[in-house]
Amino acid sequence: MQPLSQTKVFGGTQSVYTHRSDACDCDMRVAVFLPPQAKHGPSPALVWLSGLTCTEDNFTAKAGAQRMAAKLGLILIAPDTSPRGDQVPDDAAYDFGQGAGFYLNARQSPWGKNFQMETYIRDELTAWMTQNFPIDAQKIGISGHSMGGHGALTLHLKNPGLFKTCSAFAPISAPMQVPWGRKAFAGYLGDDQRLWEDYDAAALVAKRPSPAHILIDQGDADNFLTEQLRPEIFESACKDAGQTLTMRMQNGYDHSYYFITSFIDDHLRHHAAELAVT
Amino acid sequence: MQPLSQTKVFGGTQSVYTHRSDACDCDMRVAVFLPPQAKHGPSPALVWLSGLTCTEDNFTAKAGAQRMAAKLGLILIAPDTSPRGDQVPDDAAYDFGQGAGFYLNARQSPWGKNFQMETYIRDELTAWMTQNFPIDAQKIGISGHSMGGHGALTLHLKNPGLFKTCSAFAPISAPMQVPWGRKAFAGYLGDDQRLWEDYDAAALVAKRPSPAHILIDQGDADNFLTEQLRPEIFESACKDAGQTLTMRMQNGYDHSYYFITSFIDDHLRHHAAELAVT
Repeated sequence: MQPLSQTKVFGGTQSVYTHRSDACDCDMRVAVFLPPQAKHGPSPALVWLSGLTCTEDNFTAKAGAQRMAAKLGLILIAPDTSPRGDQVPDDAAYDFGQGAGFYLNARQSPWGKNFQMETYIRDELTAWMTQNFPIDAQKIGISGHSMGGHGALTLHLKNPGLFKTCSAFAPISAPMQVPWGRKAFAGYLGDDQRLWEDYDAAALVAKRPSPAHILIDQGDADNFLTEQLRPEIFESACKDAGQTLTMRMQNGYDHSYYFITSFIDDHLRHHAAELAVT
Repeated sequence: MQPLSQTKVFGGTQSVYTHRSDACDCDMRVAVFLPPQAKHGPSPALVWLSGLTCTEDNFTAKAGAQRMAAKLGLILIAPDTSPRGDQVPDDAAYDFGQGAGFYLNARQSPWGKNFQMETYIRDELTAWMTQNFPIDAQKIGISGHSMGGHGALTLHLKNPGLFKTCSAFAPISAPMQVPWGRKAFAGYLGDDQRLWEDYDAAALVAKRPSPAHILIDQGDADNFLTEQLRPEIFESACKDAGQTLTMRMQNGYDHSYYFITSFIDDHLRHHAAELAVT
């Protein structure tokens, strides 16, 4: 399997691959960081899901995660945020269509044929990564930013035995109650809100809290905080459900990768510590 | 003075400003990182010069330098790599014209009117930054990558009392002897090679070694190593001139910002330590 690109960083290897997704009926791009420790045997891995408009490159180039991942011996897997290509439907809006897959399985036409990101991440990506890289399949965590934080929380809560640890930066954690989520769910899933609940972290945690300790960082200078993110809804749902959660409001930080890079080391340490004892 | 953008990162502030350059007869963009310590008094500063095709953003977004700068209390100043704008001459090539100012004062038409990057960096940028930010003017270092490494070495060697410390990543350190440098010097300066020597780090160090300890990192998997960079020429010139130099060949690293981020902490520590005792 040949990478599209491969570069040494912090003693490890940062590569970008493309692989076939049957679920999305297209090729998907994935960035993979292998720390030096991966040469010596199976390592824990963290799947990172990016936000609206992003590709596999944003986290890889801007988060500065490889430094700590190389120290901890953590493999980083950063897939693209949606199916791509000329044959894949798109929308002119930044928050719908390509670059905005919302990590769900779409049911509405014309999106259903390709926008099967839940199946892709849960089944195909995990199979591909564990088959091709020295990953300990019992030690996989998941994290993400904004729309990707939504993906990380929902995929973890629905599959706590697969994605054993979970964290998020500024996640869309109550999508049914905010404009980004309502637009995406109506467009991809249709009007039946019972279907929406399966992709709403606040609704999911109420039904099935996980044994993990979830870590969330949220900047209090984030322009999207009060309209799109509303972390208090998820925080309240976790409290009611008995979900272990650390929610940190970070003074003065916005929604950018400068916020992510400021706290990524804490998240990587959190996953490494929790995965070490699973 | 209002920034174009301002974002909190690692407890400090990353901003982008624009300011007037009379030398370049245009507005210039500059990225400025202020560490938390800058609130409490004058701090040392490092000027970073980027390479061909870059702007003020590449180092700022990709090098991951703010983390260590915030620990060390180091201000980071990253200017654009050339004059810009519709009124500024340009060239279709990536290695000449806008984005390729080579940190020199051009003499050839039509470049001379705007391409006065040496004067801009040495006089205007340093005046602007020390007037507007809490910088200890006695503690300014300079570093850069590729074309910017050339800029850092030459500006340091010609102004060791202004830019007191110097380091570089994969610098063009013998430009008179490589295609990038010969093209730029012929185009901007003309055919008189006596003028070129004033912008060739290997020629300069032979005449006036500096009291500083210069640190250079060079990846041995860098595609430009043998044709464009040729660090052995500068290394030999330093040895002959008695210039203190640490030249580190880094196994397996290429010419990208993944190389820079892997070793930027060492460079920031090097500058902070040397500036502390100047």
